[in-house]
Amino acid sequence: MTRPSGRLADQLRPVSLETNFSRHAEGSCLVKFGDTHVLCTASVDEKVPPFLRGKGQGWVTAEYGMLPRSTHTRTDREAAKGKQSGRTQEIQRLIGRSLRAVTDLKAMGEVQIKVDCDVIQADGGTRTASITGAYVALHLAFQHLVRVGSISTIPLIDQVAAISCGIYNGVPVLDLDYPEDSNAGADANFVLTGRGGIVEIQGTAEDKPFEESEFMALMALARKGIGELTALQRQALGQ
Amino acid sequence: MTRPSGRLADQLRPVSLETNFSRHAEGSCLVKFGDTHVLCTASVDEKVPPFLRGKGQGWVTAEYGMLPRSTHTRTDREAAKGKQSGRTQEIQRLIGRSLRAVTDLKAMGEVQIKVDCDVIQADGGTRTASITGAYVALHLAFQHLVRVGSISTIPLIDQVAAISCGIYNGVPVLDLDYPEDSNAGADANFVLTGRGGIVEIQGTAEDKPFEESEFMALMALARKGIGELTALQRQALGQ
Amino acid sequence: MTRPSGRLADQLRPVSLETNFSRHAEGSCLVKFGDTHVLCTASVDEKVPPFLRGKGQGWVTAEYGMLPRSTHTRTDREAAKGKQSGRTQEIQRLIGRSLRAVTDLKAMGEVQIKVDCDVIQADGGTRTASITGAYVALHLAFQHLVRVGSISTIPLIDQVAAISCGIYNGVPVLDLDYPEDSNAGADANFVLTGRGGIVEIQGTAEDKPFEESEFMALMALARKGIGELTALQRQALGQ
Amino acid sequence: MTRPSGRLADQLRPVSLETNFSRHAEGSCLVKFGDTHVLCTASVDEKVPPFLRGKGQGWVTAEYGMLPRSTHTRTDREAAKGKQSGRTQEIQRLIGRSLRAVTDLKAMGEVQIKVDCDVIQADGGTRTASITGAYVALHLAFQHLVRVGSISTIPLIDQVAAISCGIYNGVPVLDLDYPEDSNAGADANFVLTGRGGIVEIQGTAEDKPFEESEFMALMALARKGIGELTALQRQALGQ
Amino acid sequence: MTRPSGRLADQLRPVSLETNFSRHAEGSCLVKFGDTHVLCTASVDEKVPPFLRGKGQGWVTAEYGMLPRSTHTRTDREAAKGKQSGRTQEIQRLIGRSLRAVTDLKAMGEVQIKVDCDVIQADGGTRTASITGAYVALHLAFQHLVRVGSISTIPLIDQVAAISCGIYNGVPVLDLDYPEDSNAGADANFVLTGRGGIVEIQGTAEDKPFEESEFMALMALARKGIGELTALQRQALGQ
Amino acid sequence: MTRPSGRLADQLRPVSLETNFSRHAEGSCLVKFGDTHVLCTASVDEKVPPFLRGKGQGWVTAEYGMLPRSTHTRTDREAAKGKQSGRTQEIQRLIGRSLRAVTDLKAMGEVQIKVDCDVIQADGGTRTASITGAYVALHLAFQHLVRVGSISTIPLIDQVAAISCGIYNGVPVLDLDYPEDSNAGADANFVLTGRGGIVEIQGTAEDKPFEESEFMALMALARKGIGELTALQRQALGQ
Repeated sequence: MTRPSGRLADQLRPVSLETNFSRHAEGSCLVKFGDTHVLCTASVDEKVPPFLRGKGQGWVTAEYGMLPRSTHTRTDREAAKGKQSGRTQEIQRLIGRSLRAVTDLKAMGEVQIKVDCDVIQADGGTRTASITGAYVALHLAFQHLVRVGSISTIPLIDQVAAISCGIYNGVPVLDLDYPEDSNAGADANFVLTGRGGIVEIQGTAEDKPFEESEFMALMALARKGIGELTALQRQALGQ
Repeated sequence: MTRPSGRLADQLRPVSLETNFSRHAEGSCLVKFGDTHVLCTASVDEKVPPFLRGKGQGWVTAEYGMLPRSTHTRTDREAAKGKQSGRTQEIQRLIGRSLRAVTDLKAMGEVQIKVDCDVIQADGGTRTASITGAYVALHLAFQHLVRVGSISTIPLIDQVAAISCGIYNGVPVLDLDYPEDSNAGADANFVLTGRGGIVEIQGTAEDKPFEESEFMALMALARKGIGELTALQRQALGQ
Repeated sequence: MTRPSGRLADQLRPVSLETNFSRHAEGSCLVKFGDTHVLCTASVDEKVPPFLRGKGQGWVTAEYGMLPRSTHTRTDREAAKGKQSGRTQEIQRLIGRSLRAVTDLKAMGEVQIKVDCDVIQADGGTRTASITGAYVALHLAFQHLVRVGSISTIPLIDQVAAISCGIYNGVPVLDLDYPEDSNAGADANFVLTGRGGIVEIQGTAEDKPFEESEFMALMALARKGIGELTALQRQALGQ
Repeated sequence: MTRPSGRLADQLRPVSLETNFSRHAEGSCLVKFGDTHVLCTASVDEKVPPFLRGKGQGWVTAEYGMLPRSTHTRTDREAAKGKQSGRTQEIQRLIGRSLRAVTDLKAMGEVQIKVDCDVIQADGGTRTASITGAYVALHLAFQHLVRVGSISTIPLIDQVAAISCGIYNGVPVLDLDYPEDSNAGADANFVLTGRGGIVEIQGTAEDKPFEESEFMALMALARKGIGELTALQRQALGQ
Repeated sequence: MTRPSGRLADQLRPVSLETNFSRHAEGSCLVKFGDTHVLCTASVDEKVPPFLRGKGQGWVTAEYGMLPRSTHTRTDREAAKGKQSGRTQEIQRLIGRSLRAVTDLKAMGEVQIKVDCDVIQADGGTRTASITGAYVALHLAFQHLVRVGSISTIPLIDQVAAISCGIYNGVPVLDLDYPEDSNAGADANFVLTGRGGIVEIQGTAEDKPFEESEFMALMALARKGIGELTALQRQALGQ
Repeated sequence: MTRPSGRLADQLRPVSLETNFSRHAEGSCLVKFGDTHVLCTASVDEKVPPFLRGKGQGWVTAEYGMLPRSTHTRTDREAAKGKQSGRTQEIQRLIGRSLRAVTDLKAMGEVQIKVDCDVIQADGGTRTASITGAYVALHLAFQHLVRVGSISTIPLIDQVAAISCGIYNGVPVLDLDYPEDSNAGADANFVLTGRGGIVEIQGTAEDKPFEESEFMALMALARKGIGELTALQRQALGQ
């Protein structure tokens, strides 16, 4: 089997995490998984959502969007259509849950951080790139809050990153790009912490149901890939 | 550990599948997982969605809704709010994918079947009950199409059913009800076929990340539960 | 003249009022007028609408919906379309006015009761069945408020019920079912109290204008039918 | 009893019907019931609604709106809020049904006439003024279609007009203005044809239920008032 | 060159400003520029927008709408479509800015005045007629506030009026009507104060780019026209 | 007077036009006016809008958006709010008109080009940067159509670019950045062609009305700036 990109089965695309890409945001990161480019910005908001007011804890939430021509053919602009698709909502809920899983909401104080993940260019794996970059942006926003004295330590209890794996031409492979993703027999997204804990698993049979052994092979690939991604996160954050 | 309901860790709630509940639908099933009651109706539509017109194949899709007071406290009506929540969209996309995974879309002819899953009463596990009942409603709608001569055989290549599992008080348990679901440390939904193939897996750490061994224990429970559910489906369909 | 159902001109369909159908709602009633089935749930909300805050009185309101396949052919889901139809709004405003006409809003305290009427199966007369069942659900919710000590007596000053009548094949008949309703020359809905007071009358010529004498015949039929419905309400409430 | 306006119980407000008020519309009428002013325009549209295409018949429909400051205090603009209220939809459906009740839809050919009723100033009775003026605008639009040769005769089988009546200070009165309407114990709108046939009746108890005898008194007043309105319509149309 | 209306190149259409047209509004003016008729009403609202609460200053804002058949062919009702067009929003933002440019927001106290400009009949130039009439309505609303003692002097620092000019058949002309507007090579709207200050200029090449000299000719025409309009405003206000 | 950036009154910010920034779009350009960065992509769509079908001509349209944290403080996402603001619509209409003013719609064939201008980072002047970059993206998309043989020559009859000017601290300055824009006494956007023709002028007094002489000074600055911008466009396009 040869992957369209010529990568090995367990090889990530070239990954980069460019910090402080945005001049205005408290934290930001332009994450690239090959030709998939996502701008992640973390904005501090003094107001928590209504259900948390006065509870002495904070909140982290995420929003996701794609530029209309980030995709191979132009996708209609959600703002013009007047609503976000089910896919968009699914992804932004996933990003938010993933970030909250490694945040000590009590320790962050009564503020909200909104992380926007906007896809500048898409080539498969936008949700996993988003989570990986969003963690970096969130970390930088917390650094900012420490720097300005709002909190004394960064309220993150672990790292979090994500990667997709799939069965392509019958073989389990790591980090699907678009040509693979649109032909994969099965596709799974893994969100894991720096210490290897499972935050989210989403596996979907695209064509026909898959076997448990196949699923376990995907999880093993994901562990390898996420090990590399969390190392890159630490490097980007100068740790 | 004692479950609030007194059930064993690997014990389903009482499950019933009442077929032909609705007078008008081509196929229908009132599914009950304990106090969770979902009415599933399958409606035959002569028109396929635009992207499939003239392609000589059919489509199966699903919609999901909750009656405002199916829940412990009243939930605002989505029709009144003017949009479906992200959760609703996530669930109805999952139901649709699950049904299509066992349907031979080419063999069903150029028609569309829309399966509506409406929660009459909720006590946890509405999405898994929906999938389990939706399969029965879909099967009945195909029986109807065979009976009226539109197709010659039922274009289903396998059964599909779903169940949730979770870590409750540190112990893996099968078929979470609401009191368990709202306190579970982790929660996973499994959609499997009658032959045991994996269609969808969605695992979420609610509180803190979970271990791979825990995840495997949940999958084993799911296999047991889905074996029982698919037997009940066959029984309800008189097979 | 023979009615499609074989009923006499002044004969109601079999009517049942099943109380406490819903596990969660403070009051609930599954009302059946023949094959028309409506689930009515009354939910107590501690917050009154903004225009009544601090005025020392309560409010009763209603919402109405139809399951997509409650009808002969599937109706698009209002939540998916993003708005409620004019018909839906007309009906839910009517139900709310009817209930408020027999409620002592001052005596109920500063709470709001929202009555949801959801049509599980439709065969004509869903709005009249809704009003008839909604009264029972509302009464049960007030019983609940008495039981928990919020109020000392049930703040209902009369019963309220509703029925449709119409000119079918030139003959005035009581309680139109769908085959009659879709062929009636005129159609009138009457909302009357237990003591016979008029709360609402809505008469519509479907085909050609009707005469005053015809209208009076419809009102006489309505009085008979509503006498029977209010007796059934008292029986369902154990009075 | 004295009415706020000093009118007799069975006295209409000064009514005027100014035809061809609008330069562009095929038919138009500015109707005034005292200080209630409604501009009715009838527009010919070559396209019938989808459910009638190719059926060889026409359609008449209506839309209703209020200028934001037509009312005593400013009402939010529906276009800015992004939806029409339930009241607006109820009224425009009523106007449409009333006009169709006197139109021979088969004889008008496959065109649609949309009648817009826009309230320039409101002082009670906007829906009844709208129906009364809309009939005139519709008649003029049909005259236009005869003049340009689309049809040979005006496909109206009768006139239609509407009036409200109510119980004010215990006395049945004709043509409620705003000060009466907001204090009436009961309120009924009657839509009758030129020959006295009943098209629509909508009676509502505002405060407490009303008696059949009261209702009959309102209907008698309505007959008198509509006799006068239909005479004014004929005069405005030069008949 | 002959203009379709026979007017001279620098001649306005007949302009009238009818004050107190509306019975309910604190200030109102029916403005006519030939066959373009706009009803402007100014409504006093005790609540300023959220961003100004407690800042000790007021606000003036505007909304704009067209009756569906104010235009040559019927335009769909924005309330029915569920949103205001880009054109509508552009115009109402322009009207609001124009009025605020001559209002002393600090001197008016913490109230908001909403000016509604509703086009009853359109024949080109609706936005400029709206601004011209809106100023008069606003002035009258301030007179009302002085009369009732809310403020001691009218907080207007200048007059404001607007006119369109364009290149029609190669010749610069004043106050385009619809036949001219739909054929103009360039079109510019000028909003000027009574003292000749520039509030807004919006110039658009419809067909091909225009020259600076042409633009200067349009501005000279505008100055002449606005001089006449502001004189008419003073006359209408009895100054 | 010193500008916050230290620029001369008639000095543009550093401007760059990076072509082919996007992998997927037929034409693209990342335009930077100092810290204002806008990604412009031009997408070829085989379908023209309904009003042009079968007319043998093409169409150019534009959409505009801002990433939520492109701004100093986070702006709510329009897709999440469910509608585009008036400002957004105003800007995208302006961009579309500007591009069409230099396009030979007949010569481009029956296709549509949609130009998306998405603000990655904002520091004032986003609409003028958008127009300037959009022209380049459009040109590249036409080059693509020539290359694939759809058309034989590029159907652009001139270049188009835009710049803002304003009165800052009483002095006319070129190319306002955000600190200037938010304090300018007047602000004008000029859209000019390569040959100096005027396509659009939008001048707004922010604080108090401005004089004609001031306006003329702004136009002179604009001519200088646009001369430089169109030179940079030619250079970016390799002309």
